[in-house]
Amino acid sequence: MKSYIGVIGASEATAAERANARAVGSALAEAGAIVVCGGLGGVMEAVCEGAKLHDGLTIGVLPGSDRATANVHVDVALPSGLGELRNGLIVRFSDAVIAIGGEWGTLSEIAFAMRTGRQVVALGSWERVLGDERSLRRAESPEDAVALALAAASDTVEGAS
Amino acid sequence: MKSYIGVIGASEATAAERANARAVGSALAEAGAIVVCGGLGGVMEAVCEGAKLHDGLTIGVLPGSDRATANVHVDVALPSGLGELRNGLIVRFSDAVIAIGGEWGTLSEIAFAMRTGRQVVALGSWERVLGDERSLRRAESPEDAVALALAAASDTVEGAS
Amino acid sequence: MKSYIGVIGASEATAAERANARAVGSALAEAGAIVVCGGLGGVMEAVCEGAKLHDGLTIGVLPGSDRATANVHVDVALPSGLGELRNGLIVRFSDAVIAIGGEWGTLSEIAFAMRTGRQVVALGSWERVLGDERSLRRAESPEDAVALALAAASDTVEGAS
Amino acid sequence: MKSYIGVIGASEATAAERANARAVGSALAEAGAIVVCGGLGGVMEAVCEGAKLHDGLTIGVLPGSDRATANVHVDVALPSGLGELRNGLIVRFSDAVIAIGGEWGTLSEIAFAMRTGRQVVALGSWERVLGDERSLRRAESPEDAVALALAAASDTVEGAS
Repeated sequence: MKSYIGVIGASEATAAERANARAVGSALAEAGAIVVCGGLGGVMEAVCEGAKLHDGLTIGVLPGSDRATANVHVDVALPSGLGELRNGLIVRFSDAVIAIGGEWGTLSEIAFAMRTGRQVVALGSWERVLGDERSLRRAESPEDAVALALAAASDTVEGAS
Repeated sequence: MKSYIGVIGASEATAAERANARAVGSALAEAGAIVVCGGLGGVMEAVCEGAKLHDGLTIGVLPGSDRATANVHVDVALPSGLGELRNGLIVRFSDAVIAIGGEWGTLSEIAFAMRTGRQVVALGSWERVLGDERSLRRAESPEDAVALALAAASDTVEGAS
Repeated sequence: MKSYIGVIGASEATAAERANARAVGSALAEAGAIVVCGGLGGVMEAVCEGAKLHDGLTIGVLPGSDRATANVHVDVALPSGLGELRNGLIVRFSDAVIAIGGEWGTLSEIAFAMRTGRQVVALGSWERVLGDERSLRRAESPEDAVALALAAASDTVEGAS
Repeated sequence: MKSYIGVIGASEATAAERANARAVGSALAEAGAIVVCGGLGGVMEAVCEGAKLHDGLTIGVLPGSDRATANVHVDVALPSGLGELRNGLIVRFSDAVIAIGGEWGTLSEIAFAMRTGRQVVALGSWERVLGDERSLRRAESPEDAVALALAAASDTVEGAS
């Protein structure tokens, strides 16, 4: 079974965050994982762009009701109409989660993922909440983030079977 | 932009309903449309099976939290954890909807689609509610159902641009 | 435990439908039941108005994010931000459901309630879908509707304990 | 218009957290505010208990489908069936939010409230995320927490009118 990795981060992102997201998307696609994200700009657009460079599959769970708001690198654009509550769906659709950057929406997804027992990998995100829990890991690079997330996702899938 | 067509129907389906669903899935895939469904058995499984015969893309929006409950013909399995409320998401994710068979869950999706202005095409489904509204059409065959749904979906997409 | 009765119907309602809703609200309040509705105008406003005449408690589950859209007879106004998906929540919050009038939104709630095993009582609503199922009953009057709904709700509560 | 104050915190709570929650509930009820919470035990039960000592109105938005899981001090028990996604609804139903204690579910609600522009008051909760933002304030006592939340809620209500 393929791994579904949620990549979360804000639509307003720094160049460094976008570069990280692009590298994460590429590494996920190369590993055969499906990218799940919020479908809009910034980190969401960069991770999809990276994934499409390597023929990955990208899912965008949009907050509004208009499919056309998805960025052009989203393959499956899903207008949820749930507003920011769609953050919780992104987490539910994912086996593990990579967080990039430090907005409140990102933190809500980190916390929801932790609450529901998913591995969270932080790449330059919310250092303030990082403690010593094994299920909330700091990654040093995009490649490191992907490796940690995929390892956890594969445990999840095996654990479920 | 690709059309997203929701195909709704129950997990307990007759042989005729399954055959209709399979034919609908095949015709949608041949037309390049993305199939959105509830991801479980019966009508949902048959439409995905038909779509995969022609290399279509199939999305399953699951009621529970376990991705493994998806039928084997689902490409993108999305465990929503929303229970029967996920019916509303299936409709939101779709440009138009084809209903097959007559269970209550199917009727909730028909009504929700009508409420939100989407074309509904009924193929052996809820004859009792069919009136003379142009947006709730009775199809005579799977091919007819697909043609009606795709025409409406393309109007929707054009209307939005 | 108090009974929670969902009263569903459209914001555009005839004078007869509003009169029925008002009488239903009064009878529910006199019986000590909590009224759950969509919180807007038409049937929703009339049922709340009727309930408040007899000091009932009224809950309005709003589609948007603005509490101020609730009608003035709503005691507890809950802005869900879920759009029409909030119809499903109204049903979940209710032990049994009374439907008044014939719009698509009302039908989606009827079908969702049937799907989830709740008694539905139709008072001048969707005669076309009424069959011979015991759990979808036609009421002849507001008082009849309330009696049928409360009897079913009390079964539900007892059944759960 | 009455203020709706969300009080969030875990079902496993320390004696100090429960005492804080009880005092918060009492102060909210005395001020005429409606208490919105998750409806279960721990902080949720204590805040409802405190509110009922002063005749307050308490709303419990439950994660599951069974109304009987609500604690005995909940006046309006709403079984959402949304699982942990109901955290987002609690925030949407509230004008401002008081967070007590440090679980992940609580953090998801803090972050969601911040994301959607609501005042968050932390009473012994997630000191790690507290920065210098005016909209995320640390309270020194239950009374202080209630005063900060009510002031913000009243701004919200006025701002909306």
